[in-house]
Amino acid sequence: MKRIVILGSTGSIGRNALWVAERFPERLQVVGLGAGKNIDLLAEQVRRFRPRVVAVLTSELAGDLRRRLSPDTEIVAGLSGYQQVAALPESELVLSAMVGAAGLVPTLAALRAGKDVALANKETLVMAGDLVTTEVRRHQVTLLPVDSEHSAIFQALTGHRRQDLRRVVLTASGGPFLHADLEELQRVTPAQALAHPNWRMGPKVTIDSATLMNKGFEVIEARWLFDLDLSQIGVAVHPQSIVHSLVEYVDGSVIAQLGIPDMRVPIAYALTHPERLPLDLPPLDLLAVQSLTFLEPDRTRFPCLGLAFAALKAGGTMPAVLNAANEVAVEAFLAGRIPFLAISAVVEETLGQHRSSPAVDVEVVLGADRGAREEARRIVERLG
Amino acid sequence: MKRIVILGSTGSIGRNALWVAERFPERLQVVGLGAGKNIDLLAEQVRRFRPRVVAVLTSELAGDLRRRLSPDTEIVAGLSGYQQVAALPESELVLSAMVGAAGLVPTLAALRAGKDVALANKETLVMAGDLVTTEVRRHQVTLLPVDSEHSAIFQALTGHRRQDLRRVVLTASGGPFLHADLEELQRVTPAQALAHPNWRMGPKVTIDSATLMNKGFEVIEARWLFDLDLSQIGVAVHPQSIVHSLVEYVDGSVIAQLGIPDMRVPIAYALTHPERLPLDLPPLDLLAVQSLTFLEPDRTRFPCLGLAFAALKAGGTMPAVLNAANEVAVEAFLAGRIPFLAISAVVEETLGQHRSSPAVDVEVVLGADRGAREEARRIVERLG
Repeated sequence: MKRIVILGSTGSIGRNALWVAERFPERLQVVGLGAGKNIDLLAEQVRRFRPRVVAVLTSELAGDLRRRLSPDTEIVAGLSGYQQVAALPESELVLSAMVGAAGLVPTLAALRAGKDVALANKETLVMAGDLVTTEVRRHQVTLLPVDSEHSAIFQALTGHRRQDLRRVVLTASGGPFLHADLEELQRVTPAQALAHPNWRMGPKVTIDSATLMNKGFEVIEARWLFDLDLSQIGVAVHPQSIVHSLVEYVDGSVIAQLGIPDMRVPIAYALTHPERLPLDLPPLDLLAVQSLTFLEPDRTRFPCLGLAFAALKAGGTMPAVLNAANEVAVEAFLAGRIPFLAISAVVEETLGQHRSSPAVDVEVVLGADRGAREEARRIVERLG
Repeated sequence: MKRIVILGSTGSIGRNALWVAERFPERLQVVGLGAGKNIDLLAEQVRRFRPRVVAVLTSELAGDLRRRLSPDTEIVAGLSGYQQVAALPESELVLSAMVGAAGLVPTLAALRAGKDVALANKETLVMAGDLVTTEVRRHQVTLLPVDSEHSAIFQALTGHRRQDLRRVVLTASGGPFLHADLEELQRVTPAQALAHPNWRMGPKVTIDSATLMNKGFEVIEARWLFDLDLSQIGVAVHPQSIVHSLVEYVDGSVIAQLGIPDMRVPIAYALTHPERLPLDLPPLDLLAVQSLTFLEPDRTRFPCLGLAFAALKAGGTMPAVLNAANEVAVEAFLAGRIPFLAISAVVEETLGQHRSSPAVDVEVVLGADRGAREEARRIVERLG
């Protein structure tokens, strides 16, 4: 029995994790939950899983929730509330699945409390990869990837000698606009961008998939999760989303992890590693898939990928700025305030305005994040 | 430094193994060689690698070789010679790469002498899987697969929990006649059958690839190497020979090993496992491959696959009979005495004549082998 905390329980990853926990009550016990504003769903989750403590965004929401639940559930609020749930004494593992920059501080709280962390919040590593991995080493805990790509690499590294690794290749579906030309991309609506061909995910990551910024974030995430050089990370567009990523070794041998595109597989693996759960999902039928294809990503139509590589190369606070500018730009796009192609333009210009400095602590990172958001909002105003 | 013996050094696998040994003299030292009749090549190999002992097929060939070599190489002959080289006190690992049934007794000698065995001679496991794996357990040695498919499965199992395995899928190129109809198959010449589209291998295994008997043997081999039920072994035709095989786990996750079709990769892995050698071969370029496809094998046009499943299911001496009848039939086909489609007919009829008995010891297995060869030769005479 593993006792777990889920931060971001009402989001797509959180709900899938609870789907797993519900089916394997003898393997997983939910002792804490954290969510944002979706109090209706959170109340239902609390009634079903009976965590000891839950955290919500504000004390007002906490009051709301209080009135709906029995008094034996402790309700906490705000950043300190999330940190408290992240560090619950009785938990062994924290699933970090909040959206965006908000996940950083609670994730650090979990690591500092000696918890293993199943990391779905990739922004945590994008913003502060060095700080986070330093805490992982210091507290001798395990950071388990939840992204399907990083779960694939993690699985393809398991059992093989780390010094024999040559490079990794992250696969990318290419998103809904894989074959769209620049003119079509200019006219993309939020509804079109939210219709991912293979994966059912939350809105933020779905837009990031459409711009390939998501893959750029994953490159940065892979750099930190697996301690790689930038030159060791490749990206291949693989429209079927069956091969979730690959690891190439020095002898030319390549180990890949494959499966149907269903987040419950990597989520469950992160929660119960090294054990696997019989999830009873449809098996991968290669005969039905018939053909697996691989293409070079087009960095002209999808400039976000190159921006991410550049931010990683610049290092320091630059990846945090990349993430902050992107969050602002995606929000503006979803609100109909800027066109699709302006997302990368906002990010590029924000990066251009920033002078990178060493990411020595969380305050520096959060400061760069705040500055970049202000800058990106100004650019959005001008473009909008 | 690992000290190795290569049985079958002048064959395709043996020559590739020596290619590896020559490039990594600080990792591999060749202390013994065994070959059949190709004395010219063997003499050259002895001069280059300076093994202490070499074995050849007959004492006449031993005399021939004696005259060409300096007296510090010991030369032995015949089955006892092969057994002696297989059990050399100074070796740690024996590469068993003789062709056909001839590999069984020397392989058993190596296991009984406590050597790890890198097994390329699949007939050993086809004929006597139970006996061989019993010896492996008894002497607590390691059996390392050399076949690209089994090496792939071995690599895809490494580091994952054995109890989480659901099934394995062996891939098959489909050989040169993947798309040939029955009428075309009837007229196939040995030269056509020897032209494998992806792999450069010896003549016996190349013909077995064309009939899919090779895949049938590999199913039996997989059963013993990985202790699987017949129901856990699937076969998928994969014409590009890039995905060398796959392992499916209970959570639906699939681990596959991929690479260019080059036997030097699995040979080197078996020789130096768990270490990998930087072989400096062209890397797998998925962008150049573009498409990986998977098809159901056609058991009507390629009946040998079904015959192998049936022989494995019957158990006992039946797989040894399958192998013996196939060796006789392939030899007759290569000599132009029977048509291509008669290979499966000879095997099927020989199996039909045999009453399976428990394969309690090598003598029983070799007796079944001899009886099947006589029977198969009679059938060849009648058909020819």
